[in-house]
Parts: sequence; C-alpha cells; structure tokens
Amino acid sequence: MSTRDEMTPWSRDEFEARLRGLGARYHIHHPYHRMMHEGHCTPEQIRGWVINRYYYQVSIPIKDANVLANCPDPEARRLWVQRILDHDGAEGEVGGIEAWLALAEACGLDRERVASLDDVLPGVRFAVDAYVNFARRSTWQEAACSSLTELFAPEIHQQRLTGWPDHYPWIDDSGLSYFRKRLSEARRDVEHGLRVTLDHFTTRAEQEHAMSILQFKLDVLWTMLDAMWMAYVEDRPPYHSCPEASR
Amino acid sequence: MSTRDEMTPWSRDEFEARLRGLGARYHIHHPYHRMMHEGHCTPEQIRGWVINRYYYQVSIPIKDANVLANCPDPEARRLWVQRILDHDGAEGEVGGIEAWLALAEACGLDRERVASLDDVLPGVRFAVDAYVNFARRSTWQEAACSSLTELFAPEIHQQRLTGWPDHYPWIDDSGLSYFRKRLSEARRDVEHGLRVTLDHFTTRAEQEHAMSILQFKLDVLWTMLDAMWMAYVEDRPPYHSCPEASR
Repeated sequence: MSTRDEMTPWSRDEFEARLRGLGARYHIHHPYHRMMHEGHCTPEQIRGWVINRYYYQVSIPIKDANVLANCPDPEARRLWVQRILDHDGAEGEVGGIEAWLALAEACGLDRERVASLDDVLPGVRFAVDAYVNFARRSTWQEAACSSLTELFAPEIHQQRLTGWPDHYPWIDDSGLSYFRKRLSEARRDVEHGLRVTLDHFTTRAEQEHAMSILQFKLDVLWTMLDAMWMAYVEDRPPYHSCPEASR
Repeated sequence: MSTRDEMTPWSRDEFEARLRGLGARYHIHHPYHRMMHEGHCTPEQIRGWVINRYYYQVSIPIKDANVLANCPDPEARRLWVQRILDHDGAEGEVGGIEAWLALAEACGLDRERVASLDDVLPGVRFAVDAYVNFARRSTWQEAACSSLTELFAPEIHQQRLTGWPDHYPWIDDSGLSYFRKRLSEARRDVEHGLRVTLDHFTTRAEQEHAMSILQFKLDVLWTMLDAMWMAYVEDRPPYHSCPEASR
C-alpha cells in the first residue's frame, strides 16, 4: 500500500464498519463473560462481578459530567446530559445506579456494602478511573468515540436477559431490570455517539486515532474482567500471598 | 477502644511504625516476584516484566513533575526536582530510564521496541496512570506520602543484585546497574518523603488518610504484577480468547 493510499480517508461506511469490527475484542469474549453466559459461574463469581461492576456504574455519570465540562456546544450537551439523568434517575424515577443496586440485592448482596465500594478490586478501580480520566483530559468528541462500546452492548444485555433466569434461578427476576432498561437506552446513545464520531474524525489520521480510542475503551472493559478473573476464578485476590494476608 | 482513643493522634514513632508495617503488602510478596527471586522465571517472564516495568520508569518523572506543579515551597521543590534528574540523567550522565533500557538490552530485548511502549499491558498502563493521576490531583504532601513504598525498595533491589547473577546467568551483569543505582537514591528519597509525611499528617484522621494513600500505592504495584501474571504465567494476555485473537 502506498503512502498516498494510507492517507486516503476511509469512506463513512468503511470507517463505521471498522469501528464495528473492533467488536471482535468486546469483553463478551472474555473467559469470565463466557463462564457467566454459559451458566458456569458460582454465586460468589456472579456477586463479585456485580460488586465490581457497580464501580463502573457509579463512575459513568462522572465520566459523562466530564464530557459536558469539555463540550462548548449546547445542542450536544442537551443530548449528552440525558445519560447522566438515565444513570442517576430523574426525580421519582429509578435510574441505572438504583437498578444496579436492585440487581445486587436480587443476588443476595447487602446494598449498603455494595454502595460503600469497599470490596471493589484495585485493578477494576484503576481501569474505570482510566476511562473517567480519559474523558476529563480529552475533547468531548474523543470521549464520545470512547463510548462506542455501546455498539456492542445490546447483545450482551440480551444474553443476560435470556440466559440468567435458567442458569441462575437463585437471582430474583426483578433484579434484571437494569439490563432491560439499557437495551433501549444503549441504542439511542450509540446513535448519537456514532454520528459525532463519523462527523468529527474525517482525515485518515483522525480516523485511526478514533480506532485507537475505541481500542482503549475495549482495554478498560477487558482489564476489569481480568482483575475479577484473578480474584474470583484463580482465587488470587490482592495480598493473598502476603505474610499478613487479610485486608 | 473509645472514640476518644480512636481520635488521639499516633506518636511520630508509632505513625512511622504503622507506615512501615504496610510493607507486609509490598509486591515483594507477589507470586510473580517470588518466582523471579527464586529463579523460576522463564526468559520470557523476565522480559515481560522488564518491558512492562519500563512504563513505570518513564512515568515516574511525569509523576514527580506533577508533584512540583502542586508544590508552592521552593525548598521542597529543590529537593524533589532531584528525582526527575535521577531518572532523566543530568547532562552527560546515565539516568534511571537509560539504565533500565540497558537492563532491557542485557535481557536480549530491542531497546527501540521497549521504548515504543507497544508491548505494555493495558492493566499495567492503567495502574501506573492511576499513580500519575493521583500526583496530578493531590497535594504535594499526599503525593510525597504515596512515594513511601521506597521504604521497602532497598530490600527488593538488593535481592535482585544478589540473586540474578546465579539464577539468570543469561542476563549480562552490566544490566543490573539500575538496581545498584537505586539502592542509594531510594534511601535518600525516602528520608525526605518520610519527613514530609510525618510532619504534615498530624491529626489521627490525617494519619489514617496517609495510611490509605500508601495502601493505594501498594495496590498500584501489586496490580501491575497481577496483569503480568495473567499475561505471562496464566498465558491469558488480553484478547487471547477472541475470535480474531491477534492485536
């Protein structure tokens, strides 16, 4: 391929196809997710996932507030602010954070304990914080691009809605409303994020930069599950091998 | 213990002893480090560690520049700036970064490839970035406190100097100069960092805050090795289980 070809921008369709192609690295393929989907997780492994993933849930509105803080466009802010309302819940409504706590309770966890974040693994915290910091220090269009893992989210939510009642009957069905809620929200959000990305990253160098941003976000999700794998599958939580092993 | 006792500040000596006590969670106890110390690492496992730890080396001066950027005290800056010079090397001298690249070469690695950071694991990147971001967003005294893992570093450097020539004779001895260099630097740095910490955190609540800061830094170091364990011991690097597994 000549330098000239390398620098030709991808067409809008090809750029979108390449972004979607990164779905091959979505955490739906992580061994932890596969175990969960195939019904092989123990209650402790499900609970560990719910506890740690809660840190992601509470961090997303902070991430989105950083997007707003870097966005000078009122129209874009008006659309984006909806994400914060979805997670926090508008007055009198159940938001995503509350729905996740309901999931935690349906799994037999104590909501105050989960909300305390005391049991969140450091590796999960660092990965999620990397995402929040990315939004803090990037342009709002870059942050919008990093949110495009939502392209792949409906499938993973649908898998849980379909599989969990059979595989994990001990989880109260009411706990699954988070996944139901996100099915429609993720579709709406990704439409906006995708439009921003396709409009904003137009040179070939910019398009490749966008690809690396989406890859970074895939790394965040993958690394969260790696930390959970170490702690709950390999049974090697932090400091397990220390002389004084309790935290 | 009564509330009154809980709020009584620890004496300077007891505070220092408690900080030193956290050494029980230093990464010297991580299975990866134990393997390395006992001579059981393969060349690939040593090389993986050198490659990933390089990201820490290049990030430390950025961390220290953030400490300077938050420090209004010229006297403290004058002492602290020495850390940046140590890593970058004063004019005509070999600094810590260059010494690490010499270690990489002594291990049979290509210096340009290591310097590119292309092979750094995402989990290592997120943990190291968490440390840099902590320094960016904290007071300089909090950042000084987070550097106190240097309290425990001389032992780990000495272990390498003593054990590696026997265990890993394929590593050229000249590559170990980094560890020799840090033996004396770490002792000088920690003296300053400890004095700042003991002087600055004086109420019981502040002292406990300092303990949590040092715990955070221990989490950073531990989590770096967790990521390497997953990739090089469990043979589960990111995306190993994806349909299109190559990065």
